[in-house]
Amino acid sequence: MNKIEHIGIAVKDMDVSCDLYEKLLGTSCYKKEEVASEGVNTAFFRTGVNKIELLTATSAESPIAKFLEKRGEGIHHIAFDVENIVAEMARLKQEGFVLLNESPKRGADNKLVCFVHPKGTNGVLIELCQDIK
Amino acid sequence: MNKIEHIGIAVKDMDVSCDLYEKLLGTSCYKKEEVASEGVNTAFFRTGVNKIELLTATSAESPIAKFLEKRGEGIHHIAFDVENIVAEMARLKQEGFVLLNESPKRGADNKLVCFVHPKGTNGVLIELCQDIK
Repeated sequence: MNKIEHIGIAVKDMDVSCDLYEKLLGTSCYKKEEVASEGVNTAFFRTGVNKIELLTATSAESPIAKFLEKRGEGIHHIAFDVENIVAEMARLKQEGFVLLNESPKRGADNKLVCFVHPKGTNGVLIELCQDIK
Repeated sequence: MNKIEHIGIAVKDMDVSCDLYEKLLGTSCYKKEEVASEGVNTAFFRTGVNKIELLTATSAESPIAKFLEKRGEGIHHIAFDVENIVAEMARLKQEGFVLLNESPKRGADNKLVCFVHPKGTNGVLIELCQDIK
């Protein structure tokens, strides 16, 4: 795995949190994007070579709606940049990690993504991200 | 703020979690260090230009012991690299963020650090980190 591609943070109100993270990070949001398949709206900020992704739910069935209900606002996942997501998924599976999708799926910000079950990673939801070229 | 310096993850058993994160990240732990003032043991892994820091409590009064009791294992904080921690602390204070220490203190991995109260950042504990030269 390479650098941290981004940290996903679940928030309730995108407008309020965008203002807040612009002040905190000292930089403007550079992209807002809906990922309909995941039931989320996203907003991205650059912090050096890394990114912060704010996430709000667009429906009650969204994983973010369930997370907010259970845990409240806070860090939702860590995404790592990988060069070859299929190879990395195979490596993790062989090491005994449980993948939440069997093949890479389309994520926000022009990526192929796969999530790793947090039960096998000390409660941390891990995302693998490969750039779509 | 610059890149993400590291992500802190609270775990119960350092040996078990070190093995697990070596497999997950595909890299060995490069440093273990106790920070007595914080009541924690730490273990660091490199992921590209970023790091993962595993944290265990060394006493019942440790913030990590309290976090584990309340939330269980999981992501504890995001640390951002800053060039001038005193200037960044002043900027955040002026923006209305609440700092958990009034002056920089000595953290793990040869850093000056300051934490920002998670109540003002959507439940995310933020750490500022400046290299000690």
